[in-house]
Amino acid sequence: MPSKMVGKQSLRFAHPPSIVGYGNAVGQKESQGKLQAYFDVICADDRFGEDSWEKAESSMQAQAIGAALGCARKRSTEIDLLFGGDLLNQCIATGYTARGQGLPFFGLYGACSTMAESLLLGAMSLDGGFAKTVMCLTSSHFCSAERQYRTPLEYGGQRSPTAQWTVTGAGAVIVSEQGNDLYVTTGTVGRIVDKGITDVSNMGAAMAPAAYDTLHQHFMDFAIQPSHYDLIVTGDLGALGKEIVVDLFAQDGIELKHYEDCGELLYHLVEQDVHAGGSGCGCSAVVLTGYLLREMRLGRWEKILFCGTGALHSPTSLMQGESIPGICHAVSIERKKGAGLHV
Amino acid sequence: MPSKMVGKQSLRFAHPPSIVGYGNAVGQKESQGKLQAYFDVICADDRFGEDSWEKAESSMQAQAIGAALGCARKRSTEIDLLFGGDLLNQCIATGYTARGQGLPFFGLYGACSTMAESLLLGAMSLDGGFAKTVMCLTSSHFCSAERQYRTPLEYGGQRSPTAQWTVTGAGAVIVSEQGNDLYVTTGTVGRIVDKGITDVSNMGAAMAPAAYDTLHQHFMDFAIQPSHYDLIVTGDLGALGKEIVVDLFAQDGIELKHYEDCGELLYHLVEQDVHAGGSGCGCSAVVLTGYLLREMRLGRWEKILFCGTGALHSPTSLMQGESIPGICHAVSIERKKGAGLHV
Repeated sequence: MPSKMVGKQSLRFAHPPSIVGYGNAVGQKESQGKLQAYFDVICADDRFGEDSWEKAESSMQAQAIGAALGCARKRSTEIDLLFGGDLLNQCIATGYTARGQGLPFFGLYGACSTMAESLLLGAMSLDGGFAKTVMCLTSSHFCSAERQYRTPLEYGGQRSPTAQWTVTGAGAVIVSEQGNDLYVTTGTVGRIVDKGITDVSNMGAAMAPAAYDTLHQHFMDFAIQPSHYDLIVTGDLGALGKEIVVDLFAQDGIELKHYEDCGELLYHLVEQDVHAGGSGCGCSAVVLTGYLLREMRLGRWEKILFCGTGALHSPTSLMQGESIPGICHAVSIERKKGAGLHV
Repeated sequence: MPSKMVGKQSLRFAHPPSIVGYGNAVGQKESQGKLQAYFDVICADDRFGEDSWEKAESSMQAQAIGAALGCARKRSTEIDLLFGGDLLNQCIATGYTARGQGLPFFGLYGACSTMAESLLLGAMSLDGGFAKTVMCLTSSHFCSAERQYRTPLEYGGQRSPTAQWTVTGAGAVIVSEQGNDLYVTTGTVGRIVDKGITDVSNMGAAMAPAAYDTLHQHFMDFAIQPSHYDLIVTGDLGALGKEIVVDLFAQDGIELKHYEDCGELLYHLVEQDVHAGGSGCGCSAVVLTGYLLREMRLGRWEKILFCGTGALHSPTSLMQGESIPGICHAVSIERKKGAGLHV
C-alpha cells in the first residue's frame, strides 16, 4: 500500500471515504444570491425561531444536520463521530448544537477553514478505522459575527470596499467508509501564514497568502499542476483575495484556470452590496453542500480541490497590535466516473 | 486485527502510539503548589517576557514546546502535525504560537478537555498512518481567563467557595509511532452532558456529570472495572466535582478507588487559597506532562486513564440564559513493563 503521508504536508487516503450526504440552512440574503436554487432550509427572518442570533446559529446548524441526514437517508444514531466548530467565542454555536445530538464530539477551531478541517479529520478517522460514519459541521451568522468581531449592527458602521459579508448559513456533511459516487481522496494540512495584514475589513488579503501556501504545497507534494483539477475553490477570500492568489501564482509563472472562490460564487456582489464577497465558516460550508457537491453528482466536475481558508485572530489580538494569521486546509473530492446522477 | 472501534464511543489503537516527549511551563503560583518538583519552565512574573497576558500565554506554550522537544530529543521539523487549542476567544494563544512553528496545524476547541482531545486525535492520526510524529499542545493563563470569563483582575471580585483557580500553565506532548515505554492504548470520545448548572463559580459541578458519563461508557465499552487502572485522573473538576463523580459511581454501587483530579493534585488548596482547586486547559496539561508521565516512567503506575474535562460555555451564552455544557474525553496510557526508568 502506498504511504498515506505525501510530501511535507499532505495525505492520501488508502480507502477514500465517501461523502454520502450533505445539507445546509441559510438566511434570506444568501437565498437571494447567485446560488439560490441550491439550498435546503431557508429561514424567513435570520432568527431561525430563536430569541438571539447565537441561538439562531445553533438552530441553523441543527436544521443543516437534519437536511444532511435526510440526504444520506441515515439516522443520527448512525453517526459515530461529530467534528465541528464555528467563529463564536468558545464555539458556542456548535457546542450547544452538539449538546442536542448526544454524539461523540470533537470540537474544532479553524475559523472559516472549519468545513475543510472537519472533512480532513473526519476522513482521517474513517480511513484510520476509528469510525464508519462521521458528520462534519460548521456555521456562521452575519449578526453574531458582526457584533463579536466588528461593531454591533445597531451602530450602523460604514463598510469599506474591501470588506466581506459574513454568511448566515450552516452546512453539514456526512462522510462514510462506504458510498458510491463522491470520495475524499487526498488533503493538505495547512500551516499558519501571516504577512502582517491588520485590517479586519480586508480579510481576503490576510488569508490569500495562506491559500497560496497550501495550494503550492499541495501541487508540490503530489507533483501535479493546477490543471489536475476541474475546479479549485477557496473558502472565503472574496474577489480581492482571489485576485491575490491568482497574482501570487502568476509570479511563479503558473496560470490558475478553473479557480473560483466561494465568497464570490455565493452573492451578486454589487446588487447585494456585499463589497468583496462572502466570508465566515458558513460561506464555504453552504457553497460546498449546496452548489459544489450537487453539481459534482450531476457530473459537472470530476475532481475538485476544496480549500477552506481561515483567519485565526480575535478582536483582542488586534487591539494588542497583532496581525492576522491565516490558514488554509485543502481537501480533494473526486466523483467516480460512471456514478449515478442521483441528486 | 481486532476492530479499532469499541462499543459506543471508544477506540482501541492497533499499534499504540508512544509518548516520546513532554514538557511544560508554569507560573509562580503553580510552582509553589504540591507538584513543584515536576515542572520544566517556571516564570518569575506570569508575563513570560510579554506585554500582555494573552501574549504571555503564547510565550508559555512556545516554552513548553521547547521543553517537550528537548525531552524527546527531537527537532521541531520532525513534527508532522500539531494539534492544539486553548480557552481564549478564537484560541489566539495557540494560533499565534502555531504561527511561530510553521507546522501543519489542526486547531481544536475542547475547552479544558483539550489536552485529552489533542492526544486522542494525535494518536488517531499516528495509528491511521497519517503522521509519524505529532505534537499536542494546550494552555491557560489565570489572568487572561479571569478577564475573559469572569471579571477583570482589577475589579477584585470575591470568589465563592466552589470557585476554582485557572492554572497558569502550558503543556506539550510529543507522540510518535515509535517509542519504548509509554503508550496511548485506548480512548473514549466524550459527548456533551449538561445537567443545567449555570454558576460559573461551580464548574466542577457542571463538568462532573460529563466525566461520569465518559468514564461509565469507557468501562462499559471495554467491559472493565475501574480497578483495571492503577490511576484514574480527571482534568479539572476540583475537590467538589471529584466528590460528585465519586457519588455518581457510588449510586451505581461502584467504588472509584485510585481516583484523583488534577485540579486537586496541583495546589495546596487551603494554603494557596484556590478554593475548590485548579482549572483551565493548563491544569490537566501540566499535571500530565509534569507529574503523571514522569511518575509513570519511574514505574509508579502501569496503566492510567487520563480524562480531560471541559465546559463549552461562553459569557455570552450564560448571559442569554443558557447552562454550561460539559464534555470529557478519556485516554488510557500504559507503561510497558520492564521499560527503562529513564526520566
